[in-house]
Amino acid sequence: MPTALIFDVFGTVADWRGSIARGLAPWIAQVDDRLAFADAWRARYQPSMEMVRSGQRPFVPLDTLHRENLDAVIEATGATIPEADRDRVNLLWHRLDGWPDSAAGLARLGERFILAPHSNGNVRLMLDMARHNGWRWDAILGAETTGYYKPRPESYRGAAAILMLPPGDVMMVAAHNSDLAAARACGLATAFIPRPTEHGPGQTIDLEPSEDWDVVAEDLSDLAAKLGA
Amino acid sequence: MPTALIFDVFGTVADWRGSIARGLAPWIAQVDDRLAFADAWRARYQPSMEMVRSGQRPFVPLDTLHRENLDAVIEATGATIPEADRDRVNLLWHRLDGWPDSAAGLARLGERFILAPHSNGNVRLMLDMARHNGWRWDAILGAETTGYYKPRPESYRGAAAILMLPPGDVMMVAAHNSDLAAARACGLATAFIPRPTEHGPGQTIDLEPSEDWDVVAEDLSDLAAKLGA
Repeated sequence: MPTALIFDVFGTVADWRGSIARGLAPWIAQVDDRLAFADAWRARYQPSMEMVRSGQRPFVPLDTLHRENLDAVIEATGATIPEADRDRVNLLWHRLDGWPDSAAGLARLGERFILAPHSNGNVRLMLDMARHNGWRWDAILGAETTGYYKPRPESYRGAAAILMLPPGDVMMVAAHNSDLAAARACGLATAFIPRPTEHGPGQTIDLEPSEDWDVVAEDLSDLAAKLGA
Repeated sequence: MPTALIFDVFGTVADWRGSIARGLAPWIAQVDDRLAFADAWRARYQPSMEMVRSGQRPFVPLDTLHRENLDAVIEATGATIPEADRDRVNLLWHRLDGWPDSAAGLARLGERFILAPHSNGNVRLMLDMARHNGWRWDAILGAETTGYYKPRPESYRGAAAILMLPPGDVMMVAAHNSDLAAARACGLATAFIPRPTEHGPGQTIDLEPSEDWDVVAEDLSDLAAKLGA
């Protein structure tokens, strides 16, 4: 049984697509356009982090990457979001709503386990989202704390080191098989929670576990039940 | 009014002297000897951090310094704490009890402000202490997170940067005038909470504010009242 659970957040704990689309309502009238904008913004997420992971640019917090990507998506889509509003739009990521099971599941898990986000989002982003949703984290790990974006192995190893735990006593919880594969390669325990509508109704990836993860659960409440919390 | 409050912990939020002395009971019979041991252990705290602050040794977390200092105090005092027990004794710092007003004061302050420890204690130490006392921090700042021990200015500036706030929107809360002076020099707001028995009944330092700190409060509940929380 793990001592600590660390969580992917975008997609696993929070519904970024629906939340960003709702938040864009003051600037983009049609809901389909808002969802497409959210998808386009998110599509630039991995490539922008890859510039840091590969050493082509020094570490910058995710807020910086999101802000740069916002300008690029506005240019690509022709959306009319005035320059003066863009810092505020960028903060939509700080106010993502959790999935319906997230708050209760985390509360239950927190009674028994140390809980921390291990996200590529920066500390302020994570703490704002936690306050918005009433989540209680014991610490905020992830990219800004460890200095490395997932799935760099230094990220997972750094999280275990800060927690002063052997990697096997730390369980990575994610809706993304690739995140779990990277965590397992560093010796962490793994839990898969499918989020089959993270990318919308036509999602084709991460619908099923791709490996024999240590735990597979329906959602965070089911994870609590399966871990005896 | 600040957006975030960051806290000194040893002495300001937690009663290290009484807690360490109580925790030593299995190893040291007389309470006076335990208090003297706690004082001697704490007396090595600043000199050991100074080795890091001055660059004479690379950054190591406070748990490492506490553990080295424990061996030194045992040697100096002749206390009989077996080698096999010393890692466990070192963890007494993770289970310090808060002052009587701390839990309620923090709960009230947390309704309105972002709260984080800004302590020289490492992240795991802080999160264990928070779970032990039922405190809810939004993030854990301090030495391990910023990479610098207080009162290095990088520590205070780093805390504000992680919080994405101008220094003036961050209030340092401490029972130690020197901590507040260093924070003020970095542009932070300041709140002084006297803890007149931190060092026992004969305490002579930090009984009064040494400067015109932005707020002076009796305890954390009084701080909440004075900040309108």
